[in-house]
Order: sequence, then structure tokens, then C-alpha cells
Amino acid sequence: MVDPTTGCWGVVEKESLNEMLLVAAVALIDVDGRVLITKRPDNKAMGGMWEFPGGKVEDGETPESALVRELEEEIGIDTQTSCLAPFSFASHRYDDFHLVMPLFLCRVWRGIPRPLEGQALKWVRPSHLSKYNMPPADIHLISMLRDFL
Amino acid sequence: MVDPTTGCWGVVEKESLNEMLLVAAVALIDVDGRVLITKRPDNKAMGGMWEFPGGKVEDGETPESALVRELEEEIGIDTQTSCLAPFSFASHRYDDFHLVMPLFLCRVWRGIPRPLEGQALKWVRPSHLSKYNMPPADIHLISMLRDFL
Repeated sequence: MVDPTTGCWGVVEKESLNEMLLVAAVALIDVDGRVLITKRPDNKAMGGMWEFPGGKVEDGETPESALVRELEEEIGIDTQTSCLAPFSFASHRYDDFHLVMPLFLCRVWRGIPRPLEGQALKWVRPSHLSKYNMPPADIHLISMLRDFL
Repeated sequence: MVDPTTGCWGVVEKESLNEMLLVAAVALIDVDGRVLITKRPDNKAMGGMWEFPGGKVEDGETPESALVRELEEEIGIDTQTSCLAPFSFASHRYDDFHLVMPLFLCRVWRGIPRPLEGQALKWVRPSHLSKYNMPPADIHLISMLRDFL
């Protein structure tokens, strides 16, 4: 069953693993079908890159409850865990950690997203997301959104 | 932005959370586009139900490395983390734990799947998956596979 066209068999695995990080993210979708992205502050890792809103799932949280908290803290909107629909995920090895990032879709919330942490916000059509500089883990998610939204 | 047609706002959240369980699963896809499901042993939780191969992500593992291990242990096939493509995920609250289950797609492996733990195996077309009794968390994944494979 080895398929030479995929080349996946030839990749040498790096087995050492420092830490696995679980981050929940969401594609908020407005009535025009645009998706919200936010710009990471310059002083953070991957500063200046655009990303989907979200953040680390803390102990005792589910991905959904972490997102409800982060959306309120970061952009001042109110949603509920039942308004978050599982869509796809990223699983990506960065140099010093392995990121697992479930991405939810959300079309229902209360309030107007505003930058509570000084970050820039932008509503973008899925087909235009690839024009923005986003972290390597997000590339696969951009393709999924473009193909399936 | 509250949409009365979704009803998601009316659901009362159950905030208490006992444990979050991270389980990696895979849809192995054969050359005819069929997906492998395996039957849970009768003496386990949700015994007799059909599920995607996989298992718990242990400390120090990534979802991919856990799957490579589980596939060898459960059905005797050999694959590589780079042959596993992120697809979708389940996030589902059972009575005593919250399951987060990333589902990968895999079309490339070595060996022929065989039931090393006495479980039944079945290759099923995505459009027929809904005929099988599968755990509640899997229902959303069945829809995703049917719609997108």
C-alpha cells in the first residue's frame, strides 16, 4: 500500500517531543460568509501574523469552554459552547512544542467583535485567507475553509 | 446575531467537568474508497459498537504517534505519522468525561489489517457508515466523511 506519489513514507520522523499544546480556535463567520482573523501582537511569538481567535485550553476546560472565555477576553463577544461546531484541526510540530488545534465554526454570537487587546481585526473571504501571513499550522485549515465553506 | 433557527442559545450548559480525554482516531481508506471500522469488544464501555481505529494519546505522544502505535497493536499495520492527514474532530461530553477526538485520514500503510484483539473489522462505504451503531461522538464525523470523501 505504499504510494510513491505521496512520498509520505520517505519522511524521517523526529520522535523527541518537548510538549503538546492544546489550543482551541474558531472561524467566526458573518452573514456575508466572511471569516474573522486577528493579528498577533508584535511582542509575541509569531508576532505580526494573522490567526483565528482562540487560545490555550486550560486545566479543567473543554475546547469549547476555553473558546467562550477567550472570545470574551480578546474581542468582547458572548457565545455559548453549543454554538461552536467542530470543523477541522491542525496538528503541527513547531521547534519546541507540538500544537494540536481544533478549529470550530461559529455563526451565532452576541456583541460586535472589537480589539480588546490592541490587536487588528479583519473580516476576510475564505478564498482570500491565503493572502495573509498566517502561522504554518493554519495553512491546512485555510484550505479546508476555502474548500468547504 | 442570535439566530432562532439554530436554537443553540437556548441550551443550558453543564459546566462541571470531570476529565478531558484526548483520543486519536483514523479513517483508513482503501483503493475502493471504503473506510475501516472495528467493533468494540462486548466487555468494554460502549461494547458492540463500531468505531474508527485508534486510542488514547498517552503522555509524551502526539496524536499521530499514538495512532501509529495503536494501528500496529490493534490491527497489525505499519504506517508513519507523515501519512496521517488531519480531517475533522469530535468534541463530545459523555456522562463522566469530555472526549476530544481528532480524526485523521490515511491512504498509505504497510500490511493487511487483521483483528489482533479479537475485534471484528469491516470496510464500509462512507455513505453506508450511518447504518452501523457507532458512539454518539462519531455521528458528526460520519457526516463529514460522507460529505467530503
